Amino acid sequence: MRAVCLLSGGLDSSTALAWAQAEGYTCTTLAFDYGQRHRRELAAAREVAAHFGIGDHQELAFNLRAWGGSALTADLAVPQDGVQPGVIPVTYVPARNTIFLAFALALAEVRAADAIVIGINALDYSGYPDCRPEYLAAMQQVADLATKQGVEQGGPRLLAPLAQLSKAEIVTLGERLGVPWRLTWSCYLGGGRACSRCDSCRLRLKGFDEAGVRDPLPYDDE
Amino acid sequence: MRAVCLLSGGLDSSTALAWAQAEGYTCTTLAFDYGQRHRRELAAAREVAAHFGIGDHQELAFNLRAWGGSALTADLAVPQDGVQPGVIPVTYVPARNTIFLAFALALAEVRAADAIVIGINALDYSGYPDCRPEYLAAMQQVADLATKQGVEQGGPRLLAPLAQLSKAEIVTLGERLGVPWRLTWSCYLGGGRACSRCDSCRLRLKGFDEAGVRDPLPYDDE
Repeated sequence: MRAVCLLSGGLDSSTALAWAQAEGYTCTTLAFDYGQRHRRELAAAREVAAHFGIGDHQELAFNLRAWGGSALTADLAVPQDGVQPGVIPVTYVPARNTIFLAFALALAEVRAADAIVIGINALDYSGYPDCRPEYLAAMQQVADLATKQGVEQGGPRLLAPLAQLSKAEIVTLGERLGVPWRLTWSCYLGGGRACSRCDSCRLRLKGFDEAGVRDPLPYDDE
Repeated sequence: MRAVCLLSGGLDSSTALAWAQAEGYTCTTLAFDYGQRHRRELAAAREVAAHFGIGDHQELAFNLRAWGGSALTADLAVPQDGVQPGVIPVTYVPARNTIFLAFALALAEVRAADAIVIGINALDYSGYPDCRPEYLAAMQQVADLATKQGVEQGGPRLLAPLAQLSKAEIVTLGERLGVPWRLTWSCYLGGGRACSRCDSCRLRLKGFDEAGVRDPLPYDDE
């Protein structure tokens, strides 16, 4: 069994990759250089992939910064006051997961993969619309209809193993599967140390705290 | 009303753009430099956009040649013996329209566009799975669910004005709307003159012939 695993180098996608390997998939990992503010996550993705012995790590580049529309791809301030329930924050990147999954679908077809693994979750998350289960169900229909592989044998299964886990449960799962937390990167600011205040840092720290696991990354407020 | 129009520079997308303008849309055009063999279509797209007075022509680059899997993105021979009914030809590019529409969805959100226009057709076509109406219906669901725009006001409408037209009807429509055929490019080989034998040339020539319109492009067999 082969899977294409979207790997940003963060907590969720690294845990999803560890899950896929534990399930027996031979994994191709896929990271995107899309003009993101926290471009250093690409090095984290490479290191996490190497840690797990991935022989087929792919990095694809395109420049969403040309269009902007997000605090991650334009000169807009990254919110540091915490996740506001019911509000889609300015760190939302237009159609990002659709772009990522579209490329994963292409790579899955070229590699004859059975599955695409994505680390989205819809509990402790930032309210992005393209993390919701109904979104993923619509993308599954596309995966079944869009490709030659889909027409001939059905499209790859879109697997979101973390979809219904809390951040603490994700940390607990990753801990059990041996995710090398020190190699991962989550902070949206992408500086030398994690900021501890952006939504991504807050969700990560909450997860480690509630799971009773120490996060080995250096944080700004330490 | 604003529309993002996918524009490859070929017969179909140029006619779809002319249709969108005639319908009253202010158009943003979007072309992709994806490592295609017939990269010269990008110059055609720019010239067609300029002809129609488009002030917002976007060109986005990413390298599908790194993965191959198609005669348009790898060193595989382009078939020259005609379209075989029921066979998806080797010029099919894995998940190409899904990738194109994902980027169009992102740009539509950034530009607050009401529609995305794509020149696919499912009658005189090459049998690509991502040109079928059921595929486009699945992508419409994604467009409604994937974005902040979709959550707040519904996603952009995916419009395929040529979907049910024959190639001759497309030529007739384009002729009526003043599409500058001499600026367009369709040939997959992307040489100095169109080859007249690849599927794209064959479909184009058949359309012009049946519509009784002269194709001003230079062909190899003339």
